[in-house]
Amino acid sequence: MAARIHPCGPVPGQRRPPVLRTALPLGAGNSHGSYNGTCLPGAGPPAPRRPPPGPEPRAPSPPGRLPRGPSAPSRPRPPGAAGPAPRPPSAPPRPAQPGGGRLPAAHGSAPAGPAGRPRQSGGRRAPRGQGRSSMGLELYLDLLSQPCRSIYIFARSNNIPFEFKQVELFKGPSNSEGAGKVNLLKKVPALKDGDFTLAECTAILLYLSRKYNTPDHWYPSDIQKRAQVDEYLSWHHANIRANAPKTMWIKVLIPLFTGQPLPSEKLQEVMEGLSTSLKQFEERFLQDKAFIIGSEISLADLVAIVELMQPVGVGCDVFEDRPRLMEWRRRVEDAVGKELFFQAHEMILNIKEVSNIQIDPQLKEHLAPVLMKMLK
Amino acid sequence: MAARIHPCGPVPGQRRPPVLRTALPLGAGNSHGSYNGTCLPGAGPPAPRRPPPGPEPRAPSPPGRLPRGPSAPSRPRPPGAAGPAPRPPSAPPRPAQPGGGRLPAAHGSAPAGPAGRPRQSGGRRAPRGQGRSSMGLELYLDLLSQPCRSIYIFARSNNIPFEFKQVELFKGPSNSEGAGKVNLLKKVPALKDGDFTLAECTAILLYLSRKYNTPDHWYPSDIQKRAQVDEYLSWHHANIRANAPKTMWIKVLIPLFTGQPLPSEKLQEVMEGLSTSLKQFEERFLQDKAFIIGSEISLADLVAIVELMQPVGVGCDVFEDRPRLMEWRRRVEDAVGKELFFQAHEMILNIKEVSNIQIDPQLKEHLAPVLMKMLK
Repeated sequence: MAARIHPCGPVPGQRRPPVLRTALPLGAGNSHGSYNGTCLPGAGPPAPRRPPPGPEPRAPSPPGRLPRGPSAPSRPRPPGAAGPAPRPPSAPPRPAQPGGGRLPAAHGSAPAGPAGRPRQSGGRRAPRGQGRSSMGLELYLDLLSQPCRSIYIFARSNNIPFEFKQVELFKGPSNSEGAGKVNLLKKVPALKDGDFTLAECTAILLYLSRKYNTPDHWYPSDIQKRAQVDEYLSWHHANIRANAPKTMWIKVLIPLFTGQPLPSEKLQEVMEGLSTSLKQFEERFLQDKAFIIGSEISLADLVAIVELMQPVGVGCDVFEDRPRLMEWRRRVEDAVGKELFFQAHEMILNIKEVSNIQIDPQLKEHLAPVLMKMLK
Repeated sequence: MAARIHPCGPVPGQRRPPVLRTALPLGAGNSHGSYNGTCLPGAGPPAPRRPPPGPEPRAPSPPGRLPRGPSAPSRPRPPGAAGPAPRPPSAPPRPAQPGGGRLPAAHGSAPAGPAGRPRQSGGRRAPRGQGRSSMGLELYLDLLSQPCRSIYIFARSNNIPFEFKQVELFKGPSNSEGAGKVNLLKKVPALKDGDFTLAECTAILLYLSRKYNTPDHWYPSDIQKRAQVDEYLSWHHANIRANAPKTMWIKVLIPLFTGQPLPSEKLQEVMEGLSTSLKQFEERFLQDKAFIIGSEISLADLVAIVELMQPVGVGCDVFEDRPRLMEWRRRVEDAVGKELFFQAHEMILNIKEVSNIQIDPQLKEHLAPVLMKMLK
């Protein structure tokens, strides 16, 4: 099969390596990177979790969509902007937004909105959830991680009230304490809903869709259409997800941790794999439809788009020269709202900020071989 | 983490290499093996499929379980027993069982049952489905593939009427023609239900559970328990599924295709990864419960058990020295019925038969590097 190799542009700002205490990079879960979550630093042995109380689905919240305002996102504050000052392990979790309760759906994009977004001390700005939920729904997310972005977009675009628990994977174990307690496999995304905890992106998306009775198109009740969403979500694991994140490892993370770029053949190999997957994606799943399962957006589109934005962030624009894919991307942006889409992707589209972080030399030594192994 | 390395016993019958026309080995889907299906030989570019008609769930069939008879399976007929005589491309699909319709649930184990199982000419014996379905449900399966086994067991133990379309991956493209028409990504398992086609193990299992309204415990209506099944199914992809099948590649397929064994370090590396996954499986998912989500079997247990039987078949008994895991396996066997369990695993537990197949020299040359790459 003649795979189309997509040229990748340079990632700006990759020159100055300098001191972040971090333990495991984004996407460092295992040797092939095909999983539905991102490991937190300092992962230890898991402990048993409490059995769920098992309630049935509750009253639906009204579906909604954010208004489409001007979509130019401001640049995020870089993770290391305040210097190497990770929060002490005893620091309390970020307080909920003032007043608690559910915020109005239309509260503007993060930096340009009427109220400034809450920040974690010494870290990135925390994107806003819908305020503190009366049901106690907490989502532990790092928006540099693509599964986290899909959950963030899904919850926001459906007006699901949640407390945004920001995790900064690059900040090391102290930053991920809260999430580690929720997801005992120490990965993000993680969900806490009262006493119930849940990991894995797909499981969280499905749980939210059921609990909040989101519009049918996300996960159709028609069993054949639903099966098509399931089919894509399963195929995604070993295809798009197995290839797309590697572009970030090659172009950003490995140079950051090892201090030197990988040979260009490595990137070419990954891009070949990604091209094959994208060809199947277009011909088998997308075809000439507006979205993967037809005329409306579903969870399948959401899970796919966040993954394909990962290469875009590091200069490998997979949409260039693929007009059908590009049109689909625009439809997905429109369906969830451009403002929300770009807010969720603000950090990955400014990944160069991460590239300026200085890595602790001991960590470099420890992690470089782990990263290299991932790409074998 | 101190990973427990499990000693693997030898695989008997690996000495006599001899001429099978095959194209892609079991589990050769991509470079990391973490997907929910097994590639068929001769995979070409996919073609568009027909849009589904979209019917709602139909009337349920009564749940049932096969009787538990004596569980010692006879050895299967080896794939190449009749010599290198693959079916011609034009050969019609295996005819449905005489009389069509639904067979009684209790029709005994394959070789010892009252009626001999149908065979495909020159190939393995085809395990029996529930006869030809009036709804036209066809399942394309090769029971050497673990996702196929989970679907086979699920359909049989729930008395779902289906026509068993046997695919023999080792037999090369001519054997997989029918399945290639159904699953345009040319993988097994594949489902055809009237005009509707579906790939991916998880998607097929969920579709069957919905359409045939199988007992609630398989995929509970309680949203928290259901989320736990989803969580396991997602975690499974990148953990148990990412490691367990590699034992077969190392101990059987690679020696078969390359003519020489891999260095023992390769197996040790895979077993270390599998040990880590199994530790998480026991501590995070199984804990001290009877099954993954509590007191009853679910799809999560089924998907897990078939995967863990793959190493057992090649002499790496992951249940040995893991009493909690062994007890869980016994409970799963009891829940689906030991007779059905061992019938489905007959071939993998007699994998030595496959080891005697002679591989076409040209294919060897083509596939050896592909197989080696998978294990990098």
